[in-house]
Amino acid sequence: MLKIDFNCDLGESFGSWKCGMDEAVIPFISSANVACGFHASDPLVMEKTVELAKTHGVSVGAHPGYPDLVGFGRRKMDVAPAELKAMVIYQIGALSAFCTAQGIKLAHVKPHGAMYNTAGKDPKLAAAIAEGIFEVDPGLILLGLSGSELIGAAKQTGLRYAREVFADRAYEEDGSLVARSKQGAMITDEEEAIGRVIGMVRDGKVSAVTGREIEVQADSVCLHGDGPKAVAFAEKIREALEGEGIAIVPMPEVIADR
Amino acid sequence: MLKIDFNCDLGESFGSWKCGMDEAVIPFISSANVACGFHASDPLVMEKTVELAKTHGVSVGAHPGYPDLVGFGRRKMDVAPAELKAMVIYQIGALSAFCTAQGIKLAHVKPHGAMYNTAGKDPKLAAAIAEGIFEVDPGLILLGLSGSELIGAAKQTGLRYAREVFADRAYEEDGSLVARSKQGAMITDEEEAIGRVIGMVRDGKVSAVTGREIEVQADSVCLHGDGPKAVAFAEKIREALEGEGIAIVPMPEVIADR
Amino acid sequence: MLKIDFNCDLGESFGSWKCGMDEAVIPFISSANVACGFHASDPLVMEKTVELAKTHGVSVGAHPGYPDLVGFGRRKMDVAPAELKAMVIYQIGALSAFCTAQGIKLAHVKPHGAMYNTAGKDPKLAAAIAEGIFEVDPGLILLGLSGSELIGAAKQTGLRYAREVFADRAYEEDGSLVARSKQGAMITDEEEAIGRVIGMVRDGKVSAVTGREIEVQADSVCLHGDGPKAVAFAEKIREALEGEGIAIVPMPEVIADR
Amino acid sequence: MLKIDFNCDLGESFGSWKCGMDEAVIPFISSANVACGFHASDPLVMEKTVELAKTHGVSVGAHPGYPDLVGFGRRKMDVAPAELKAMVIYQIGALSAFCTAQGIKLAHVKPHGAMYNTAGKDPKLAAAIAEGIFEVDPGLILLGLSGSELIGAAKQTGLRYAREVFADRAYEEDGSLVARSKQGAMITDEEEAIGRVIGMVRDGKVSAVTGREIEVQADSVCLHGDGPKAVAFAEKIREALEGEGIAIVPMPEVIADR
Repeated sequence: MLKIDFNCDLGESFGSWKCGMDEAVIPFISSANVACGFHASDPLVMEKTVELAKTHGVSVGAHPGYPDLVGFGRRKMDVAPAELKAMVIYQIGALSAFCTAQGIKLAHVKPHGAMYNTAGKDPKLAAAIAEGIFEVDPGLILLGLSGSELIGAAKQTGLRYAREVFADRAYEEDGSLVARSKQGAMITDEEEAIGRVIGMVRDGKVSAVTGREIEVQADSVCLHGDGPKAVAFAEKIREALEGEGIAIVPMPEVIADR
Repeated sequence: MLKIDFNCDLGESFGSWKCGMDEAVIPFISSANVACGFHASDPLVMEKTVELAKTHGVSVGAHPGYPDLVGFGRRKMDVAPAELKAMVIYQIGALSAFCTAQGIKLAHVKPHGAMYNTAGKDPKLAAAIAEGIFEVDPGLILLGLSGSELIGAAKQTGLRYAREVFADRAYEEDGSLVARSKQGAMITDEEEAIGRVIGMVRDGKVSAVTGREIEVQADSVCLHGDGPKAVAFAEKIREALEGEGIAIVPMPEVIADR
Repeated sequence: MLKIDFNCDLGESFGSWKCGMDEAVIPFISSANVACGFHASDPLVMEKTVELAKTHGVSVGAHPGYPDLVGFGRRKMDVAPAELKAMVIYQIGALSAFCTAQGIKLAHVKPHGAMYNTAGKDPKLAAAIAEGIFEVDPGLILLGLSGSELIGAAKQTGLRYAREVFADRAYEEDGSLVARSKQGAMITDEEEAIGRVIGMVRDGKVSAVTGREIEVQADSVCLHGDGPKAVAFAEKIREALEGEGIAIVPMPEVIADR
Repeated sequence: MLKIDFNCDLGESFGSWKCGMDEAVIPFISSANVACGFHASDPLVMEKTVELAKTHGVSVGAHPGYPDLVGFGRRKMDVAPAELKAMVIYQIGALSAFCTAQGIKLAHVKPHGAMYNTAGKDPKLAAAIAEGIFEVDPGLILLGLSGSELIGAAKQTGLRYAREVFADRAYEEDGSLVARSKQGAMITDEEEAIGRVIGMVRDGKVSAVTGREIEVQADSVCLHGDGPKAVAFAEKIREALEGEGIAIVPMPEVIADR
């Protein structure tokens, strides 16, 4: 039976500022990427988000980002590999402590925003992240863009990995995401998005922005939790996949056979 | 044979700003309290400090503080117990990850600055800290001022504890430290300081600022590493204690029999 | 003709986190207290908020706070008077530059949250704030709780001041606000709140929580902009005051005759 | 008579962390670039640094940087022009308030670290900085690398400018600095450095790293204040220039005739 994980960024509130609809989206996902205080979140938010995930049986991952609250970790920063590795270790440790305190186990790590994008294309930065994760816990899973340097670095390091696909983003022929600044970067039609996800999960194929069909491996689909529409879409895509006989299960189960 | 631990705050640099003489003082101590990024330190500094401690066989503890870099965690902040607990869990986790990455085990937790002083007198805050530590790892030791609420909270929570004494500070009759703002707060004469430490470790007694002898329990002596004079004093007091047949050993060994 | 100012805290968003309904509330107020980046806001938010105020002909004030984003400046911090004065100068300068860039003049300063409450009762901190304001621009107005130390410090320093009253808060007999933690601290009935404000503005009198009538001076009424209900209330209280023949004008006009 | 300005970055301490030898270097310079709290400094440090400059009759400039304390503003960040402009306005305003409070006038603005280097090569970012400065005060001087986009943007905006040269850095043929990562980037021989500065100031010429002589305009020489050697060099180069009949005067005087 085909299996896929649904992941979503949670715990992105900060102090008195609220962000996202964590309670509304969590029933529809199987893995949560929890911000660790560098680009969003704070200790209390992390504690509550881990508790929420535990209550819903959702697998928990660390979502480390650049130290840039005002830019929400979305700005590229020139960070040296050694520093990147240290900031990944730090953030994994911080979130991991809340998991331990609540009796659950941290399952994966997904870099956030600019860190995800930059390391996805830079082997040295990708290696720094993979090594940082491995040193803290070689049993953790690195969640990265399917076909990116992050996945390559995980293989190189001997780390488990999960390959991420996006329902609402267009792909270049090389498997990278079309930059948000370009036209056609977003898949706005819900039916089209659902069809693409089913194709990626079931057949390992998707149409690139050029029209050419490319291969893509899908262990986890990235969903969004920031708006009523996003939550409704999460429910819809879940139903569509289950209708195709594809089971939505936490990330560790998806990659268990590998 | 009498045993005592020597602890010192290390890893208090931040980015390009240097602080302390960690390399110079570490040969003379048995336990290091490593800052965790809230009042001082950053991921790279933490990584290097854990490495330094490991090289010297020095036991490592987390030194969590208030989120106040500009005030170095020395300013009292009105933090609710739930938030305090969460920020302690966060910081322990962050430092712990560097220990795990380097194959050593975090041994203790010593709150820093205003957190140490405030929680030392406030049972609710002390309980929040003790519970946070216990939830992350019930095997950790809470290092707090001898006779303070921190020690009481550790006992209450079922956490191991180590009672700290100061070589260079005067005591009130109730066992608390004379506030730095008061006259006579500091013991500036080195010989007097050494004599007082020996008395506290060997006999469990010290003269309060009033002249009256009070009882005090000493598992660990707090040293400073911020200046050539402080380093020389660390060496001197170490020699004096060893001359009295008192062994300087890491904190876990000191309290092993309890 | 009786005159009163309506002030509201604006510009409390931070990076990608939104806060408040600035556009909705601004038509109903005459003065805006704009956060300056220490407890909320960032340079872009400040720029846009000053622009919004300018467009609506609303008088602009600086709203300096403690350096505590995660606590939104609501936590008491032990800050020395010299440091408080410097952080007030810094924040006034930062906001003032956006006013200058847009060709308007900064009119007042209202300390935020814990800074407002603490300095309202501590003459030394109040004096530090008043002196900081005076040194940057002796023409600025200090907006503080009617009867508080802030008003006293303004008088002492030779600074203009405006006395603030609250529509939705109960008063102690000494004119201080009933602490939020106490029962009856909030006036939840809208009609009662409106009646109280009219009484304070027109007659200089209000019922304390004990029932006893006390005297209070009102130059400005503090409104809230964080919710549709708050915005509707702003409109309602404005209509009620105008119905009583009381003009709502910017703070400098209210105190012009003094 | 030939005139040149000596500028140095001051006020780079932060909280309890000290940086630089401000008191030692200030007698030898004519202009101080004062950090504004984003990459270094804090309100108290800014206040004291402005006071120090005033005491020594040294002209004061703002030294805005990226919001990156841990990276000391030396890391390139992808900041949009609108955001860059706003953060420059903010920082100028903050420092300007301390100048106003002490009765002196802010004279110039020099971007720091990665902001200086990035904007020096990017016309859009350079324009954002020049426009931000102009909007706050069209009388301010923009201090930038001789021949860089910053100087171009100042001319375009109608802003006064001062062209900076470096005593201890090698130049490419296009007038840009040889990157620190390349061999030969630093001029380590003091006599050679002094000879080069005299050549740049007197003749407007310097040997590029390739050996070819290039033209360069010098209004201000950048000195360093971080170490006893740097301070001694400041004294030495000052004497050498004065020995050549070149007067060291504050930046506004150097460019007064233009």
